[in-house]
Amino acid sequence: MGKVSMDEKNRIWMLRRRPVGSIRDGDIEIVAQPLSSLDDGYVRVKTLYISIDPTNRIWMSDVDGYFPPLPIDGPLMGGLVGVVMESKDDAYEPGQIVMPGLSPWALYNDFQAEELNSLPVLPGVPTQAFLGPLGGTGLTAYFGLTDIGQPKEGDTLVVSAAAGAVGSMVGQIGKIMGCRVVGIAGSDSKCKWLIDVAGFDAAINYKTEDLDAALAKHCPDGIDINFENVGGKNMDIVIGHLNDFSRMPLCGLISTYNAKEPVPGPYNFANLLMRRTRMQGFIIIDYLDQFNDGLQKLAEWILSGQIKYEMDEVEGFENIPAALDRLFDGKNIGKVVVHVADI
Amino acid sequence: MGKVSMDEKNRIWMLRRRPVGSIRDGDIEIVAQPLSSLDDGYVRVKTLYISIDPTNRIWMSDVDGYFPPLPIDGPLMGGLVGVVMESKDDAYEPGQIVMPGLSPWALYNDFQAEELNSLPVLPGVPTQAFLGPLGGTGLTAYFGLTDIGQPKEGDTLVVSAAAGAVGSMVGQIGKIMGCRVVGIAGSDSKCKWLIDVAGFDAAINYKTEDLDAALAKHCPDGIDINFENVGGKNMDIVIGHLNDFSRMPLCGLISTYNAKEPVPGPYNFANLLMRRTRMQGFIIIDYLDQFNDGLQKLAEWILSGQIKYEMDEVEGFENIPAALDRLFDGKNIGKVVVHVADI
Repeated sequence: MGKVSMDEKNRIWMLRRRPVGSIRDGDIEIVAQPLSSLDDGYVRVKTLYISIDPTNRIWMSDVDGYFPPLPIDGPLMGGLVGVVMESKDDAYEPGQIVMPGLSPWALYNDFQAEELNSLPVLPGVPTQAFLGPLGGTGLTAYFGLTDIGQPKEGDTLVVSAAAGAVGSMVGQIGKIMGCRVVGIAGSDSKCKWLIDVAGFDAAINYKTEDLDAALAKHCPDGIDINFENVGGKNMDIVIGHLNDFSRMPLCGLISTYNAKEPVPGPYNFANLLMRRTRMQGFIIIDYLDQFNDGLQKLAEWILSGQIKYEMDEVEGFENIPAALDRLFDGKNIGKVVVHVADI
Repeated sequence: MGKVSMDEKNRIWMLRRRPVGSIRDGDIEIVAQPLSSLDDGYVRVKTLYISIDPTNRIWMSDVDGYFPPLPIDGPLMGGLVGVVMESKDDAYEPGQIVMPGLSPWALYNDFQAEELNSLPVLPGVPTQAFLGPLGGTGLTAYFGLTDIGQPKEGDTLVVSAAAGAVGSMVGQIGKIMGCRVVGIAGSDSKCKWLIDVAGFDAAINYKTEDLDAALAKHCPDGIDINFENVGGKNMDIVIGHLNDFSRMPLCGLISTYNAKEPVPGPYNFANLLMRRTRMQGFIIIDYLDQFNDGLQKLAEWILSGQIKYEMDEVEGFENIPAALDRLFDGKNIGKVVVHVADI
């Protein structure tokens, strides 16, 4: 890349080498770049909030995940919301709040109009919510639960990482659909939030409780849907409680993404056969053509107060690694975002 | 049970203790019983052939498999075909060939009429085929592949235990449905049969070939359907070749049923997520209401010669343990049955 002067106006996070385990100094770094003049047909967007997701970490590894690995010495990418600074396309004008598709983690990006979505203004809903409950994580919860989980009135639904961005939405949508909802989380404060705010029927702190015994207690009729966000030993225990013809939307395996050694699959794998469980992996882009339907539902539930959410905001573009650590250390309740700038 | 005289006419296989690993002497044993006179409303059936299936072994263990474990000192159970000896129900008369539901492994059993199905006479199709290609294993292949596998013209289908009772049918049905079919088996003679007789596109001897390299060679466009009968390391390798939106009917995990220690799930488990694979366990009784449709299809294909099959016949009621060993040692091509008596 050559030596850059750090007083150039734009800043971009670059991948320098593939992290082993957690991200360490030197794995990713910020470079400065000048802002050239805007090309015709383009829209310049100033980043306001950056979405922090488990997939960001997968994408840095040399594995064939949802997408091919990001190239070394290329920009890191993700979701963001921003404000139009300058526009050379009639469809956009300065001041509009927009959400592009996957974008480089930068202070400024230039987009073509078709890469942008203009965001509506909803009363009481902050811009950054479009990165979480009203965006990718909300849609992930909605489609994974409804399409793969196929919830029915009276079903028992278990969700892992229950206080996380996706899990907290899954449980609340499950309640709306008439399920008995049991969340698994890693702290008493998360469990308290799940019961008191999100309205879960039960919450299990897997760090202090015997998960197997707690599931037997809180799911006396077994588990009809396991919405899986975590993987590892807890997933194995949950699989042991599945009912015949249960469903298992496989949304994430965050416990394994930082692993340095191969991770075995569940020892209870045979129970997926015996119980005739339908397990299906998915990512949200598989439902692209149904996004509007999903967003309409989510907006309705959020505006009516049926669904509550939290944003876990980390301050400062330079603190993206710390924000990712919060996710992998399970410190967050709700959606992690990085606040980069104000309008 | 008390001491019994071995010259009593009936013989029944009983479970004496739960086998650890392969079945050993003393785990199961034959007892003799007198034949009482037949009750009104019952039909006495002489066993001709007994079906030998992996599930027989699961059922002896103290695990919550498809069914609750069989009780110690109770009869072993399974599928059979027989001939009516005596009937005190107008619906049946001596000489009819019948197939009951799950039955004790005995020389003679008394059934109520509604527990029996009368078998048709099909030209060139022996009675024992109703325990295999025209019975449970054929239906297992048909519904698992069509309902869960959802084969499309041009799909690549991989099947494990490909020369077995289910696998050999799966591959041939896949060919009829326009798939490219690759079988995994454990001997050169099985592979030769798969190609020369069953018409598979390719067959891999996993004991002598590098399975990963062979799959790359024979599935250049990846795998759309993995019909899984075996589990273990081979399944792990196959999962690494799955395509996006692939399907994985989970039919059996025979490599694990004799295991003495917990068996880890696939190390490639995360690929089921990343590839958005739909994996679903099933057993054939889940499709009970569609049996007639399935049997009609199978009969059509078998009578027209589109589907070939082999029967692996073990002689003698007392040799059931040896017949089960053939299955778990992978010695059979096609359906294993025990020939108990002639009409």
